[in-house]
Amino acid sequence: MVLKIHGAPTSPNTKRVTMLCKEFALDYELVELSFWTEDQKKPEFVEKYSPLAQVPVLDDDGFVLYESRAIAFYLAAKARSPLLPSEDDVKRRARYEQAVQTEVCHVDHLAYSLAWEKIWKAYTGLTTDEERVKEYARTLEETFDAYDKILSKQKYLAGDELTLADLFHLPHGNLFPQCGYTWLEDGKRPNLYRWWKELNARPSWQAVKDHA
Amino acid sequence: MVLKIHGAPTSPNTKRVTMLCKEFALDYELVELSFWTEDQKKPEFVEKYSPLAQVPVLDDDGFVLYESRAIAFYLAAKARSPLLPSEDDVKRRARYEQAVQTEVCHVDHLAYSLAWEKIWKAYTGLTTDEERVKEYARTLEETFDAYDKILSKQKYLAGDELTLADLFHLPHGNLFPQCGYTWLEDGKRPNLYRWWKELNARPSWQAVKDHA
Repeated sequence: MVLKIHGAPTSPNTKRVTMLCKEFALDYELVELSFWTEDQKKPEFVEKYSPLAQVPVLDDDGFVLYESRAIAFYLAAKARSPLLPSEDDVKRRARYEQAVQTEVCHVDHLAYSLAWEKIWKAYTGLTTDEERVKEYARTLEETFDAYDKILSKQKYLAGDELTLADLFHLPHGNLFPQCGYTWLEDGKRPNLYRWWKELNARPSWQAVKDHA
Repeated sequence: MVLKIHGAPTSPNTKRVTMLCKEFALDYELVELSFWTEDQKKPEFVEKYSPLAQVPVLDDDGFVLYESRAIAFYLAAKARSPLLPSEDDVKRRARYEQAVQTEVCHVDHLAYSLAWEKIWKAYTGLTTDEERVKEYARTLEETFDAYDKILSKQKYLAGDELTLADLFHLPHGNLFPQCGYTWLEDGKRPNLYRWWKELNARPSWQAVKDHA
């Protein structure tokens, strides 16, 4: 049975998962939800699929899973993909877990909050809080200074091999130019730029960037 | 050689790691850093241990690792602890990854931000932003409503067995009463209360709750 991904076509978190379906050549059906009608908050969806009223949710022949990075783990483990370093080498896998946590703790919620202020608030008629924008941008800029140093010593965030941890950055990272920030693209941090350019060219991302 | 944990005695993220050292009966030396003198930002510390200028950092006989949950993975995998479900059962492990991501994405940064506004700002003479406090508290309250539903169907966040994902909540969760919120303790969400009471009684937490 084909994988079902419950999600929104424009949702960065949904794209994180559909990108990996492309990566592993897995057929999937996108079961489309709309944020405008708050489909993700409807009681039957919350009860069956998503207790925190979030997308995406994977339904693999009745096995239901939420949280995009947990779904990524599941798909990569099933595919035995080298994008998920084997646990047989505990140190290598720990460096991968370190990179995953770095993205989640130091990029994800700040990128989401920045996009909320600069992009999505405009759609809903709310006013951007410029003070918060400055704060989020300053913190992200410091993070990317650190990324540039990490990437001066190794090719990717978890070492010299590409992993899921790198790919996780694509959906939110691609919103920065729309928010008015070119940290990843302007070449001022040469190692970050080299890394980002390669990630962006990945066919799996190119296939879903405009529609999950 | 004894494990070295570079961290601050009062830091919740440091306690997340030292609690697990107690859990796995591992000797460790806490190499104390002070936030007052910004030891975590000193060039030699950033260069050798922590590119993002954060604590804790583990040094296991020269193997250096940052991000508390990545360190937790490493210690649990080395100890072959059942707190880290085996990858042989991909679905069970995926539910564990789902629980880890839920804590990181829906509790961690909000709890940190709330504590920053209500506790740490007072120490540094800054003014609490009550608007933000309300926003963080409202979001956390919705999350704990969802937790109560999850925990009405299973004993722990990843299923019927205790995992690292549950224990990860202890350091930040214990700051809520100081912030003026009793979501976890007041019994209004009975399943959440049952879960939290059991976690809090864990000897590993009791051993580090006042000093890492």
